[in-house]
Amino acid sequence: MSSKKEVVRFGPMASALANGVRKGDAIYLSGQVSVDGEGQVVGAGDMAAQVRQAYANVAEVLEKFGATMDDIVDETWFVTDNQAVLGDMKGVFGARREAFGKEPDACQTLIQVSALFMPELMIEVKCIAHV
Amino acid sequence: MSSKKEVVRFGPMASALANGVRKGDAIYLSGQVSVDGEGQVVGAGDMAAQVRQAYANVAEVLEKFGATMDDIVDETWFVTDNQAVLGDMKGVFGARREAFGKEPDACQTLIQVSALFMPELMIEVKCIAHV
Amino acid sequence: MSSKKEVVRFGPMASALANGVRKGDAIYLSGQVSVDGEGQVVGAGDMAAQVRQAYANVAEVLEKFGATMDDIVDETWFVTDNQAVLGDMKGVFGARREAFGKEPDACQTLIQVSALFMPELMIEVKCIAHV
Repeated sequence: MSSKKEVVRFGPMASALANGVRKGDAIYLSGQVSVDGEGQVVGAGDMAAQVRQAYANVAEVLEKFGATMDDIVDETWFVTDNQAVLGDMKGVFGARREAFGKEPDACQTLIQVSALFMPELMIEVKCIAHV
Repeated sequence: MSSKKEVVRFGPMASALANGVRKGDAIYLSGQVSVDGEGQVVGAGDMAAQVRQAYANVAEVLEKFGATMDDIVDETWFVTDNQAVLGDMKGVFGARREAFGKEPDACQTLIQVSALFMPELMIEVKCIAHV
Repeated sequence: MSSKKEVVRFGPMASALANGVRKGDAIYLSGQVSVDGEGQVVGAGDMAAQVRQAYANVAEVLEKFGATMDDIVDETWFVTDNQAVLGDMKGVFGARREAFGKEPDACQTLIQVSALFMPELMIEVKCIAHV
């Protein structure tokens, strides 16, 4: 197989970073965080809100490939504080379920890291989709 | 290709998280940790023991897809203390070799993170397999 | 499909760790760091220099599969200090652009971790390529 790489770039970091890359059936996404279209953090201090916005950004990238949340097979959640997840399981996993429109058919790995690239960010979601 | 997503779910977190997802030849696994079938931590304080149990859980997920440890192509070890690995290379990598039944034909990335989702956990192993 | 796994092993850790594994079109690489062929750290204290050396190691592994930097679709940067990246964007992303020979068509996720496996290391780059 020698399908061409398909690259999606938009937003404030477009010159340096691709938002997503598709090769064959696989779509890789850059880690998505809770920022709006201008790069401003949304939902500071509120993990469920950040989960909601991060997935809105994931969905936007997927859409540019003609893909949907249901195509996600794997995700890694890099969070700055596990307790913000474990202390609000209902809110946080509710926001996740809502983003997928159902109980997600996706793997998940949850890791607490020491920092994300902007101090207000509480979560970065790294997704792989297969169409 | 438009193979269907195949999803494996079992254990205490089955409603929210898939243990593994297969699409085409690729099998993604959620990060596996040293817990038994009831979600109780096994091998507290003993990295080699936790490696052993985490891989037992990896093998269990793979088996449900009809796959084996030998199908693993890539793994990331998220550990809470590199020294628990580097200070017992023989024990830890011995446990890994034993889990694979031979010197593993798999990539590895070793990262020290600030916490895993249960305090007694020393390692979370994130695997990708291709059949 | 049932292509065989192709495994590349060389260097000081060759017995325990594969440097790269190819299955079908996908090539997974172990996390690459700023060490030379003897395993000595290069560029201590200099993030741009470590980025350069880490990618030299990435390119070396890819080459053994007949692949190039342009085949990279996804990368995760695990760094010990985000500020070493954000405080020298021009130098660091310049070193990255130079390694790819152009603005990289690759996703990126940037994560600050608490430690890498040698104290002088500032970055570990985990790449996935598709040929």
